[in-house]
Amino acid sequence: MKLYSFFNSSASYRVRIAMALKGIDHQTVGVNIRIGQQNALEYRRLNPVGLVPALITDDGESLGQSLAIIDWLDRHFPQTPLLPANDPQRMRVLEVVYAICCDIHPINNMRVLRYLSDELKVSEEQKKRWYAHWIQQGLSAVEQLLRRSQSGAFCFGDAPTLADCCLVPQWANAERMGCDLSGFPRCKAVYDACTALPAFIAAAPENQQDKIPA
Amino acid sequence: MKLYSFFNSSASYRVRIAMALKGIDHQTVGVNIRIGQQNALEYRRLNPVGLVPALITDDGESLGQSLAIIDWLDRHFPQTPLLPANDPQRMRVLEVVYAICCDIHPINNMRVLRYLSDELKVSEEQKKRWYAHWIQQGLSAVEQLLRRSQSGAFCFGDAPTLADCCLVPQWANAERMGCDLSGFPRCKAVYDACTALPAFIAAAPENQQDKIPA
Repeated sequence: MKLYSFFNSSASYRVRIAMALKGIDHQTVGVNIRIGQQNALEYRRLNPVGLVPALITDDGESLGQSLAIIDWLDRHFPQTPLLPANDPQRMRVLEVVYAICCDIHPINNMRVLRYLSDELKVSEEQKKRWYAHWIQQGLSAVEQLLRRSQSGAFCFGDAPTLADCCLVPQWANAERMGCDLSGFPRCKAVYDACTALPAFIAAAPENQQDKIPA
Repeated sequence: MKLYSFFNSSASYRVRIAMALKGIDHQTVGVNIRIGQQNALEYRRLNPVGLVPALITDDGESLGQSLAIIDWLDRHFPQTPLLPANDPQRMRVLEVVYAICCDIHPINNMRVLRYLSDELKVSEEQKKRWYAHWIQQGLSAVEQLLRRSQSGAFCFGDAPTLADCCLVPQWANAERMGCDLSGFPRCKAVYDACTALPAFIAAAPENQQDKIPA
């Protein structure tokens, strides 16, 4: 199995966490999205969407979209299940997953920030405020969702789920961008609990072979 | 069961299609997001995220996020299943679902367009180009994904799936915004096949009780 990934892409990071939690043996291929390697013809043939990550299964199927990949992994490698089978856990996990993956991440990812600079000529200061605005809105919602169901050290209960796989990369990004995260103590506690685990450490951007020094 | 929905919200539209395809009896409550009704305290208590749609189940549980709601509906009302259980169908459906729900819709929804106008003071022309840019990028990807797996009148096969529930509202939005859609004949054919079905007609914005005349 082969994972096409960029060390600092939070969608790639989600999948890396899932694979590490499940202990899935695989090869990682770095795709440097800062210089547009995701647009190379060879990569586009694997993933027409031209985004990272993409998974190549042992059957040679190529699959894009982090959440589709994790759904596939969770069905084919059922050890350490990431999505509860039953309600209310399942509905609560998915509610948080989509609050991050649909309501925060897409608006703040690299291609959108680049469009703001290159096409709309917004200042660095405006771009920083844009980023902070969607983090503030999005994590406020996640904080409330987590408090509503609060239990255990992780988002939901005593073991990481798909919600934790999505929260940790988003939190790490927000921290890297210098956002004020003081209003989200429950998210912070989950982040700290997750990032103490070997699987999350192995999946972290700073521990990837394709890491580009700052 | 109660669905909080806005006639012109494409996330609400997805859920309305799913409920109509499954023939689920329910009450619809209009939430006018143009005047901020999603921020009312009463609504925020149901859905801390403050976005539409939200579902209130017969057990009184409230659930936000269109895809989490459809996952719940698909498990509790298994008639007309919307997500195939097995690969490769399941992985291909989800890949298209997320290409729409994560890569297109969030960047072009009302709150983002409003931020562009109100905070970044971009012109109407620039906002139109922003919208068209993400439609062009996103639907190009979807078009290729659909062509790769082409079969049947719908996104995947001879019956609508979750992919169709997501494509139709996105296409309708793009059409309403006057985007050039000539490069996406496969998407167009799927849209035409879907919108000929009674369930899709019943779910369409123009047939909602909370419709606001143009």
